[in-house]
Amino acid sequence: MPTSPLVVSVPEADYAEALADLDGVDAVVWDMAAPHPRGPEIRYAVMPYMTSLDLARVTQGLTALEVVQLQSAGYEQYADVVPDGVTLCNAAGVHDASTAELALTLTLASIRDVPEFVAAQAARHWVPLRLRPALADRKVLVVGYGRIGRAIASRFAPFEVTVTAVASRARAGDDLVEHVHGIVELPALLPEHDVVVVIVPLTEATRHLLDADALARMPDGALLVNVARGPVVDTDALVAECASGRLRAALDVTDPEPLPEDHPLWTTPGVLLTPHVGGATDAMRPRAKALVRAQVEALLAGRPVDNAVVGPLSAQGG
Amino acid sequence: MPTSPLVVSVPEADYAEALADLDGVDAVVWDMAAPHPRGPEIRYAVMPYMTSLDLARVTQGLTALEVVQLQSAGYEQYADVVPDGVTLCNAAGVHDASTAELALTLTLASIRDVPEFVAAQAARHWVPLRLRPALADRKVLVVGYGRIGRAIASRFAPFEVTVTAVASRARAGDDLVEHVHGIVELPALLPEHDVVVVIVPLTEATRHLLDADALARMPDGALLVNVARGPVVDTDALVAECASGRLRAALDVTDPEPLPEDHPLWTTPGVLLTPHVGGATDAMRPRAKALVRAQVEALLAGRPVDNAVVGPLSAQGG
Repeated sequence: MPTSPLVVSVPEADYAEALADLDGVDAVVWDMAAPHPRGPEIRYAVMPYMTSLDLARVTQGLTALEVVQLQSAGYEQYADVVPDGVTLCNAAGVHDASTAELALTLTLASIRDVPEFVAAQAARHWVPLRLRPALADRKVLVVGYGRIGRAIASRFAPFEVTVTAVASRARAGDDLVEHVHGIVELPALLPEHDVVVVIVPLTEATRHLLDADALARMPDGALLVNVARGPVVDTDALVAECASGRLRAALDVTDPEPLPEDHPLWTTPGVLLTPHVGGATDAMRPRAKALVRAQVEALLAGRPVDNAVVGPLSAQGG
Repeated sequence: MPTSPLVVSVPEADYAEALADLDGVDAVVWDMAAPHPRGPEIRYAVMPYMTSLDLARVTQGLTALEVVQLQSAGYEQYADVVPDGVTLCNAAGVHDASTAELALTLTLASIRDVPEFVAAQAARHWVPLRLRPALADRKVLVVGYGRIGRAIASRFAPFEVTVTAVASRARAGDDLVEHVHGIVELPALLPEHDVVVVIVPLTEATRHLLDADALARMPDGALLVNVARGPVVDTDALVAECASGRLRAALDVTDPEPLPEDHPLWTTPGVLLTPHVGGATDAMRPRAKALVRAQVEALLAGRPVDNAVVGPLSAQGG
């Protein structure tokens, strides 16, 4: 006796193609902009990336809906509007490679003076040779040692640097670091490190984790790299440390964001800014498709979905 | 019976300090700008870095001189002026970390649009979010697989890319690549790769290795990174491919060099330029000191020095 297929909605045709070989799956392409005629059949719905859809509105009439899949890691804006009985899954992991890569990009571009050379190129000026800094031999502190922190550490490893990891609690190390330090050790670790890369989630505990006191502990000439969230750093204190020429910074995230035109960060010496582009690359697409496929396979097999952050299938769910 | 010490000259005091614990070594600090009173005793002389000294003149009166040590890898300008009976050693290895690091810096800065963001920062403009390219999932071809080529490959390895290596002759692979392709396979490999990093020595065989035909084989949107020597690439052909928007380039070396103010490369779209800064970083100092120490230990022990490129102790020597 044939069972009815698992109806899933995906935002683009190539996501449906990535599911085409799975028996028992009926993938419909739906961008959620207008109601879909097969809405009442959809059990797993993948939201578009970089959207500001009203989740409560788009899920109206989706009477079979079990799981809403985000393509972002952040889900705070949806946490309170998930319909009763529906589970929200985020896309943890999908943006790790891209974000870790940007952490290295910011570090290397800053240390190897790329902003100076970009300006010199615009002025058609061949800068005379002198001995400049390198990343090699530097001591790198990765603050936040979850999936992205580990991805960052793995990319630093071959650069002939020392990598130290800090997480919320001390624990045993792995193949990349001998030991993971607890966040209580941060004040003692900061003076020993030339590059500090921040990749912690923003919580009340991490807001202004890098405050004036913490920044003052960084050694002269050190570089702060923020690929986490802007408010993890006290921006005023950072501007002061960089304006004096004591520290440098490379920031993909700022506080506030977007940065207003008259904000001092734009022109503070030694500051390199990118406009929150860490995860938004085409590297996310194959990784998002792989996640969607794994989730659909779990639903087919009656196994739990991954990355459930809100609702009955989440750890907090009932 | 005490033997006379091995007298060596080093260009800076910290090089002498790095030898202070070696018995039987008398290190004198000499920048070679003027004759040194102990010149006739010096058997191993380390030249300053980034110098244009006249080797024939500075070695006059150095009657005990056995080895001149360069701090650069390049030695062509000295090859014909080494005094009879003296061996010239270059500094192969000392600049590998720095140059490999710049290859990654150029690749990441170009692919992750750092030049665009530097310009936007100068204009106080927060660029709106869109999906951009990443290095992850790209196919990287390293053309030239000596020490620096391997150092480059090792740094690419954790970025979730495929790395292919090409050397002058095909050979077995290593821990980084399954197989090293021969240069005759380059035309067939170019169409398959998104990032081509060139790190071959400049010889008559490699001049214009990346000519119009080779560049035409690179796929649309591919990136050429040159950390070798400018003339390895046909600059006119590269300007044409980038001006059309088909290829991108990130170049630490150009042809000619320095680039004249009116050269089209300065303003060709998709081209990122650094002014031949690959090896000239402070990462070279500990590595140069380690090389000097190893050479002095070899002389003390009567073992052959490393990196002998000209003279009686070189492979070509008699």
